[in-house]
Amino acid sequence: MIVVMKAHATEDEIQTVVRMVEEQDYRAHVIRGVERTVVACVGEERGEHELGHLESLAFVDRVMPVLRTFKLAAREVRPEGSRIAVDGVEVGGKRLAVIAGPCAVESREQVEETALAVKRAGAHMLRGGAFKPRTSPYAFQGMEEEGLRLLKDAGRKAGLPVVTEIMDPHDIDLVMEYADVLQVGARNAQNFSLLRRLGKVRKPILFKRGMSTKIEEFLMAAEYILSEGNPNVILCERGIRTFETATRNTLDLNAVPLLKEWSHLPVIVDPSHGTGIWSLVTPMSLAAVAAGADGLLIEVHPNPAQARSDGPQQLKPERFAQLMAALKPVAEAVGRSL
Amino acid sequence: MIVVMKAHATEDEIQTVVRMVEEQDYRAHVIRGVERTVVACVGEERGEHELGHLESLAFVDRVMPVLRTFKLAAREVRPEGSRIAVDGVEVGGKRLAVIAGPCAVESREQVEETALAVKRAGAHMLRGGAFKPRTSPYAFQGMEEEGLRLLKDAGRKAGLPVVTEIMDPHDIDLVMEYADVLQVGARNAQNFSLLRRLGKVRKPILFKRGMSTKIEEFLMAAEYILSEGNPNVILCERGIRTFETATRNTLDLNAVPLLKEWSHLPVIVDPSHGTGIWSLVTPMSLAAVAAGADGLLIEVHPNPAQARSDGPQQLKPERFAQLMAALKPVAEAVGRSL
Amino acid sequence: MIVVMKAHATEDEIQTVVRMVEEQDYRAHVIRGVERTVVACVGEERGEHELGHLESLAFVDRVMPVLRTFKLAAREVRPEGSRIAVDGVEVGGKRLAVIAGPCAVESREQVEETALAVKRAGAHMLRGGAFKPRTSPYAFQGMEEEGLRLLKDAGRKAGLPVVTEIMDPHDIDLVMEYADVLQVGARNAQNFSLLRRLGKVRKPILFKRGMSTKIEEFLMAAEYILSEGNPNVILCERGIRTFETATRNTLDLNAVPLLKEWSHLPVIVDPSHGTGIWSLVTPMSLAAVAAGADGLLIEVHPNPAQARSDGPQQLKPERFAQLMAALKPVAEAVGRSL
Amino acid sequence: MIVVMKAHATEDEIQTVVRMVEEQDYRAHVIRGVERTVVACVGEERGEHELGHLESLAFVDRVMPVLRTFKLAAREVRPEGSRIAVDGVEVGGKRLAVIAGPCAVESREQVEETALAVKRAGAHMLRGGAFKPRTSPYAFQGMEEEGLRLLKDAGRKAGLPVVTEIMDPHDIDLVMEYADVLQVGARNAQNFSLLRRLGKVRKPILFKRGMSTKIEEFLMAAEYILSEGNPNVILCERGIRTFETATRNTLDLNAVPLLKEWSHLPVIVDPSHGTGIWSLVTPMSLAAVAAGADGLLIEVHPNPAQARSDGPQQLKPERFAQLMAALKPVAEAVGRSL
Repeated sequence: MIVVMKAHATEDEIQTVVRMVEEQDYRAHVIRGVERTVVACVGEERGEHELGHLESLAFVDRVMPVLRTFKLAAREVRPEGSRIAVDGVEVGGKRLAVIAGPCAVESREQVEETALAVKRAGAHMLRGGAFKPRTSPYAFQGMEEEGLRLLKDAGRKAGLPVVTEIMDPHDIDLVMEYADVLQVGARNAQNFSLLRRLGKVRKPILFKRGMSTKIEEFLMAAEYILSEGNPNVILCERGIRTFETATRNTLDLNAVPLLKEWSHLPVIVDPSHGTGIWSLVTPMSLAAVAAGADGLLIEVHPNPAQARSDGPQQLKPERFAQLMAALKPVAEAVGRSL
Repeated sequence: MIVVMKAHATEDEIQTVVRMVEEQDYRAHVIRGVERTVVACVGEERGEHELGHLESLAFVDRVMPVLRTFKLAAREVRPEGSRIAVDGVEVGGKRLAVIAGPCAVESREQVEETALAVKRAGAHMLRGGAFKPRTSPYAFQGMEEEGLRLLKDAGRKAGLPVVTEIMDPHDIDLVMEYADVLQVGARNAQNFSLLRRLGKVRKPILFKRGMSTKIEEFLMAAEYILSEGNPNVILCERGIRTFETATRNTLDLNAVPLLKEWSHLPVIVDPSHGTGIWSLVTPMSLAAVAAGADGLLIEVHPNPAQARSDGPQQLKPERFAQLMAALKPVAEAVGRSL
Repeated sequence: MIVVMKAHATEDEIQTVVRMVEEQDYRAHVIRGVERTVVACVGEERGEHELGHLESLAFVDRVMPVLRTFKLAAREVRPEGSRIAVDGVEVGGKRLAVIAGPCAVESREQVEETALAVKRAGAHMLRGGAFKPRTSPYAFQGMEEEGLRLLKDAGRKAGLPVVTEIMDPHDIDLVMEYADVLQVGARNAQNFSLLRRLGKVRKPILFKRGMSTKIEEFLMAAEYILSEGNPNVILCERGIRTFETATRNTLDLNAVPLLKEWSHLPVIVDPSHGTGIWSLVTPMSLAAVAAGADGLLIEVHPNPAQARSDGPQQLKPERFAQLMAALKPVAEAVGRSL
Repeated sequence: MIVVMKAHATEDEIQTVVRMVEEQDYRAHVIRGVERTVVACVGEERGEHELGHLESLAFVDRVMPVLRTFKLAAREVRPEGSRIAVDGVEVGGKRLAVIAGPCAVESREQVEETALAVKRAGAHMLRGGAFKPRTSPYAFQGMEEEGLRLLKDAGRKAGLPVVTEIMDPHDIDLVMEYADVLQVGARNAQNFSLLRRLGKVRKPILFKRGMSTKIEEFLMAAEYILSEGNPNVILCERGIRTFETATRNTLDLNAVPLLKEWSHLPVIVDPSHGTGIWSLVTPMSLAAVAAGADGLLIEVHPNPAQARSDGPQQLKPERFAQLMAALKPVAEAVGRSL
């Protein structure tokens, strides 16, 4: 930590800071600049003893952390990168992991038709929502347990592991029965109670970045899962909220190489939510893979114009098949396979 | 809803839209413009039958809603405005409600000293966190049940009702035992499972806007609580996330008059989180009240430089007393009392 | 400047940084932390020798500036605050400066009627655009020189100095002939060529913050004017661009006390652009003054529903008079006068 | 345009709107909904007669445009896409256009060495700044005319056309003498005076999106150039400003396929400014091309650690050569060549 004093801080004030810093088990180095004095603090910056509260002193200008605060998620912990196994599929290896399926499970026919179609096109996992976080309480909220059952059946029929969202800590046991991967949605990206509980399960967690979560905060939130004992975290960039209204979100592909640089966790991309517009899903899928993503999460629906949620961003099965065909040479161009 | 067709949509395509719209129980009016045809759809726009999925049709350009989607939160429902009673204190009337106290409960002495000081300065309720949503899992997470107990004791001693944050649905019964008002923090602003459960309790909910929640979405999220039967929702603006880094958040005071125009729910403002800088708390408190806020939520700590969380934004008791003194004439200038 | 080394930087790499830093006339202090080494650099941080380029070295993690980079705009330069005289009106003193008038000059009748009405209601200056920066090239672009003439005539008739926008360096001489204050709009907030030229004139500059300009950058841009010799800069907060779409911009009132803390320059607020909604203009005007603003810039039009630009945010003269009446007690409550 | 009336608008108020709309040469269709009446207005929405000012009427809730407002930039104008010729290089065809060079021209050696190196690696044009828009007036501002001369000489030596930024309308003639393409930077993205003047020259304009410019506004700003008669506009996505601070900007690759869908103008991407971090430049270059970009703008410097501006994002020549090698298979995978 670096504590920057105000311009006219007195020697007494500087010594007050030194004393307070040392009480927190840091060593203090006073550096006297042309206009300002800074106190450089050496110690365990990422533990419980933060120094941010020193900013409440009238003679302190700012406290600047030196280290990024995640530990277990940091690249240094596993320089070769993590590979997460999901029922025969590996996420984080040379082969890309493509997860596809409807936004919401709506009926047995709908989810089975989709499962078989995406399997045929080359997908590796099936997604589908049974509990849906909808902006309006009057909108379709998902089929709940019945939806989980239909999803699992469809996955079994198509030979695909299944991914579904968990919203409520009360539902963990239920969802665990049916799902191979538990997804945490963007709206729960800093629901630390839920994350902590998911740190106690063993199944992989597909963890989506929040709409306004900084990359460092995203890794800190992942750290809640990791620090409770579950190492199986797959990060997912799904678009952030910006001033731009032409797209539903702004897919932040910068996050892909940066997350790969900072962390050993696998990173996948959701261009369906990231754009909100079906015609952008294919180009942004190719871009995500070119940027280094380990996989994709794509919404596919047999009839998007009748979908009960997120119609505008879902692909028809035949368009998804075209996407997979277009993806293959791009994957190979960056040394990956499908 | 207004469905805007693409420029060269054929008559057949227009009729497809008309048919699909009418299947959803809307009446369709086709309006042929110079360059585009639009289909205006008359019906219950805020129910389960949305038309957004029509954007997945290649010949549809955009679907634009006409109505704002909240119902129970809308001003029309109670044009005179809601007043919410908390143990003798009223929120939403002529008198402002000032809620003050430490970010986190840290010890019996700390919370009692603060409670007595803020009471003396004129506060109407006591706040204090026992479960803390911290960015890092390694940071202080709150004293949990012990903290709730200390908070309640301090409130009783000072004669102040108490407000505390609830993060996990599993804790509702526990928190209900101690708190007079349950607070939902910014990170749970779209935790719909939690909101739904809080719709089933009777105690008032102090509901904070999320860091990236639009005003319309904020009211839709409040609607989750209202629609489950709890009408006692107090909205709280606490700053949004923008590109600006000089302040912790950007306190969006535009939201105050706009929420008052759109909704009957009381609106309070949290300038402590909204700025993150103690020296800005007083001016922004005055501004909030001048803009029409029904109350304030302010962090006060006997020794901010030793606080275990959010030190830089907490006021010392004497500064809080000065704030209250400065607030009085501003309140009166806009026809309110303290 | 603080240079943070990467985790496994070697002694050689550290010495390379030390050498490079010293070549730029800084003194280097090496501080060896638990995990990282940092090199603290003492020197003239705000001159031409920045150290940011060191981030291009593979063994450097980050370079963090210690000082804010503005000099002439800094509070320290004139702790008592600047007062700027405009033809008998003072901006930055105890008395607030209220500038009102139409978005655009549209006709002699329109601008004169407005001038007389705002004068009667207590305004101190008249505003009106003759060159309009419109998003669309097909929209009304202003009356240009004829507009300047009408504005000046109306100001003279009402006894008010006039403020108008300058967009093009080629127009400086022309605008100088007619205007008492030259306004730089949000879209030109980082048009450094224009700012530099305005540093060479003597008339006061009303300088608006850009839509995505950080507060520190705003002061750095003001520094372009100041450093060329024109000390008469009035800062204007006019709303920033965020994800919120319910209002045209997000008026950032946090900026008011922060700018007053960091700089000696007067600060006024434009709630018309800051909200884009006429019904929010009065509450946000009161809030701005309560937050410490030195004045207001308000759009008034005799018939907003016929205005050729920005109709939704312009006040009718009678509403402006009500605003001024409501403002008086708030101004007095914070020790100011109208 | 769709005018949405307030909930309890009277028949008289509806007729007032109808009358006002028809005075502006629109035909009005009144549609009476369950809760609201809307007035659909058919006419030339993109001309001078906007209807936005109707929002100033107390009985009007909102005015919603139906059409996007750009005309000459719209895809419909040239469905096959524009190709812009620059001295033998074509931008917008099957072959990608790669523009590379230093952020700023610093010396004859520096720019020549870079020119030869990027030419050798396969670049098609040389970039280099002679007039630099720097946040601080105390930072290096560019070599001005001497820089233009060195840039042109280096381009000629390497056989590359040259691109350089124009900031001030007064410099147009000067820059025209030396440059093959004139660049407008992000800070001038809505400097309409400059854009209008560039609409009168014949040379191609490389037009960068502003930090907070929406895609529709970006095209409207391009329309300022097009509508004055210069059809040679190359759009450039260079990152937008968001809450994320880990990267200098958030490169918005969604903009690439969306701009290609909405407009016929070529689109290139600047990953150097878009990320601000040299190690992200290569992955984001590959991603940009995979998303459909027509070219790249990349900063290359022989010694970034000594660069006088933007060091952290400039590539060394050998890294640029690696980038070009990595780009080739990706370009081919999406049907393009280098």
